[in-house]
Amino acid sequence: MNAHFEFRSETTFPAAGSPEASEATIAIFGASGDLTARKLIPALFTLWHEGYLADHVPIVGVARREKTDEEFRAELLEPVRKHARVDSVSDEEWARFAQRLHYHQLDLSDVDGFAAFGQRLDTLESEAGMTDANRVVYLAVAPHLFEPSVDSLYQAGLVPTGDDASRLRVVIEKPFGTDLASARQLACDLGRMLEERQIYRIDHYLGKETVQNILLFRFGNGIFEPMLNRNHVDHVQITVAESQGMERGRGGYYDTSGALRDVLQNHVLQLLCLVGMEPPSLFRAEDIRDEKLKVLEALRPGRPGPASEWAVGGQYATAEIDGEQVNGYREEDRVPDDSRRETFVAMECRIDNWRWAGVPFYLRTGKRLPQKVTEIAVQFKTPPVNLFTTVECDEEICNLVGAQPNQLVFRIQPKEAIAMKFCTKRPGMQYQIHPVTMDFHYDEAFGDGLPEAYERLLLDVIRGDSTLFTRSDELEAAWKFVTPVLDWFESDAFQPAEYAAGSWGPAGAMELVERTGRAWRVPRTDG
Amino acid sequence: MNAHFEFRSETTFPAAGSPEASEATIAIFGASGDLTARKLIPALFTLWHEGYLADHVPIVGVARREKTDEEFRAELLEPVRKHARVDSVSDEEWARFAQRLHYHQLDLSDVDGFAAFGQRLDTLESEAGMTDANRVVYLAVAPHLFEPSVDSLYQAGLVPTGDDASRLRVVIEKPFGTDLASARQLACDLGRMLEERQIYRIDHYLGKETVQNILLFRFGNGIFEPMLNRNHVDHVQITVAESQGMERGRGGYYDTSGALRDVLQNHVLQLLCLVGMEPPSLFRAEDIRDEKLKVLEALRPGRPGPASEWAVGGQYATAEIDGEQVNGYREEDRVPDDSRRETFVAMECRIDNWRWAGVPFYLRTGKRLPQKVTEIAVQFKTPPVNLFTTVECDEEICNLVGAQPNQLVFRIQPKEAIAMKFCTKRPGMQYQIHPVTMDFHYDEAFGDGLPEAYERLLLDVIRGDSTLFTRSDELEAAWKFVTPVLDWFESDAFQPAEYAAGSWGPAGAMELVERTGRAWRVPRTDG
Repeated sequence: MNAHFEFRSETTFPAAGSPEASEATIAIFGASGDLTARKLIPALFTLWHEGYLADHVPIVGVARREKTDEEFRAELLEPVRKHARVDSVSDEEWARFAQRLHYHQLDLSDVDGFAAFGQRLDTLESEAGMTDANRVVYLAVAPHLFEPSVDSLYQAGLVPTGDDASRLRVVIEKPFGTDLASARQLACDLGRMLEERQIYRIDHYLGKETVQNILLFRFGNGIFEPMLNRNHVDHVQITVAESQGMERGRGGYYDTSGALRDVLQNHVLQLLCLVGMEPPSLFRAEDIRDEKLKVLEALRPGRPGPASEWAVGGQYATAEIDGEQVNGYREEDRVPDDSRRETFVAMECRIDNWRWAGVPFYLRTGKRLPQKVTEIAVQFKTPPVNLFTTVECDEEICNLVGAQPNQLVFRIQPKEAIAMKFCTKRPGMQYQIHPVTMDFHYDEAFGDGLPEAYERLLLDVIRGDSTLFTRSDELEAAWKFVTPVLDWFESDAFQPAEYAAGSWGPAGAMELVERTGRAWRVPRTDG
Repeated sequence: MNAHFEFRSETTFPAAGSPEASEATIAIFGASGDLTARKLIPALFTLWHEGYLADHVPIVGVARREKTDEEFRAELLEPVRKHARVDSVSDEEWARFAQRLHYHQLDLSDVDGFAAFGQRLDTLESEAGMTDANRVVYLAVAPHLFEPSVDSLYQAGLVPTGDDASRLRVVIEKPFGTDLASARQLACDLGRMLEERQIYRIDHYLGKETVQNILLFRFGNGIFEPMLNRNHVDHVQITVAESQGMERGRGGYYDTSGALRDVLQNHVLQLLCLVGMEPPSLFRAEDIRDEKLKVLEALRPGRPGPASEWAVGGQYATAEIDGEQVNGYREEDRVPDDSRRETFVAMECRIDNWRWAGVPFYLRTGKRLPQKVTEIAVQFKTPPVNLFTTVECDEEICNLVGAQPNQLVFRIQPKEAIAMKFCTKRPGMQYQIHPVTMDFHYDEAFGDGLPEAYERLLLDVIRGDSTLFTRSDELEAAWKFVTPVLDWFESDAFQPAEYAAGSWGPAGAMELVERTGRAWRVPRTDG
């Protein structure tokens, strides 16, 4: 049965008005790469198109290959037409935007070349009429090039200090280390040359509207926040599920990483922070990150004992999905036959503070799961007394079942939504409960003009707002928490539990939750 | 802007299955009246049609006029076709149902006639194969005939006692007295002959799905009940608004009654009980009515001092509505020129118990208000800290406004719904709040097959379930609470405040709420 909750916005939204335009020179290192063409330049185009980015700012692609500005521009037209979140890109508009694009050939270890690069920026800024311009350097390069790139910038005198420090913003993408030690090393390496406020560690999950809405939903309403604590919450489940395997040769990288490093340590723990954190006293980057840090520092294994007591590592095995045989992980391209890399990880943890003591947080992420879905599900306690009977019907056959707990679900993808599951009276002559779900769909409510994560995050860097970026101490706390599991996975003793490709993970993941009489939610993405 | 919340029922509803059929002889006194034709017989037909009413039960219309069974049946066909909640009534089906209908001519003060009436019931029941049948006597007669009718039943030996007492259920409709003294008198008069459990005081509001859902919503969910108390609720508003005036000569009756007696003392206070009561330990009639009684007994004026400090009485004056001049109350048919009868009453009260201490409950009801709507609106406190800016837009123009409180609204009519107003992130590059409303519409969710209030209430009487009927002590407590206002309205000192027909009542009603910085909600019925 399907029916509708009416959604009413109290007022109408204006057409895109005239936002405040922000200004910064943008340099992208690794400008020949996929990320630049598919995400960064299309996002910058959209920001420019919508007036968030000042008309005159220079955008400079930097890479080793020789290339003219014209060539660089020409190769970006198609990606922008394809990926930018605008209806269509006219030739005239493109011509105007393309004027903003420049290319600078540079070897990232060539310090002398960096001096010339600095002069190029000066020239472009002066032509654009920008003085004391803020500069964003986006390191869209392999992690081992982070330190050399910054070192070259530093040696070429391109890293301002003191009051001017915040004029440079260096953006890096995960992985930020592969364990606690290497993360600390990276932090030291960069910290030698950059202040913390100059480093923007991007996690594109945090750019999504629903993720940001978690904080607003919690702290902008009077009625939800008082429920989000140990008195009312039974447990929380965070799922980041991917249906893909190792397409396009990804196995090579993945086999050095795995589900824990690749997704759980960053995305999943960040989501956990947002749903678990205390309200900050001000909605400022440092206050919010302080509160997230407190959650990470209070994070504990869900059970005493070794990691195997509270965590599960799995690896997908060959299976049929929709009538098609798919490879097991070890059969994938560029994956060793005897790989013990985990493609699935689940764990039970707790936040050991006043608010959450005793509430299990179940986390899981993996490859080759039944669907691509990311959600946070808060399950509340059932009413203390069962005054009513609960009815569930399957076509004509109805059964009395146990009371159903209320759930609040933040769905991050694929269709951003907030859903609340509650009970209502089954119309008719009895007092029978019928569980219903109210969904608030972002795209239905606000049209499908939601900003892309990269638009939001790039604009934040340009504006110098670090709210949605991970601070060094958060990163370290997250690594610290996962270390026992990481050590176990890396040990000789570890053998990942097999799960059929297309299933929800190994049996051990079910036991993790079921041993306390609970169950994993089957995420819904159809509603 | 309009978009939709998706409503998902977790399961499908079965087509009307095979409910348990209930059995009782039904006698309707006042069978020539409007209520019988428009409400009672159509409701009984629907119950019978859907299988809730056993096929063989006799339904006996009783009135003074001479009439054959055939005549009685014939005159009910059209009303049933018009008012019964069934798609269509076939001739064959009607013929079967009509066999259940009988007419008995009787003068309600004729005790001998009642003996014959008793014999008639015996005969009909014996023909129907019913032994020790339960009997429902519905007194669809003027209030002054309640006592004589029951007296005649009693003298004719038709009131069973002891263990058999509950086999007779006498249904009466308001008014149950016109003040505390007369209500007590009626209670004594009936109580001399009937036990409390034999009296079913009907309030058709309580038969509505949304009203019943208030209890289920509160006590069948884990997440709402913890919010409904002084810690989280700012205030509660209950509105029972009618747009009509004194159509069809109603002024004659109304001028002896008024808004306080006609609506506030019963419907409004019953709604207040349902939203304010503690959870009963069992969902049984007596437990629920005990809890409602506790609310009524804890009810206090919202302010110290005379009634004029916390209540307002108004009377509508002539005005233009939609370009048409409508009468003021004193110009209405059968209303005296100098009437001081209130057609509007508003008051501030408080429930002086642990849960609600300090939370104002604002009540209002009146004639000739802008729309016909009944709702309970619970307004929550705003978040303790304003972390975000709130934006309201009117077409292209957006303004920053103060934080908006969350509201939970139970709409009883015209479109039964539960609505929640909360705040969400305005999509885009800022952290801006945008208030939205989620509505759960009964008819959209469950189809428009909601039982009519009379169906539900009649079936409850037949089943002997008194949950939705007002107990004598509740009634007395309600009268007791309104007595100071009633005395004021009846005193020579009282002059009703004028309000324009089609407005939301006199200025004093606004002040009642505004003096604490609050405001009346404008009920929405479009969503």
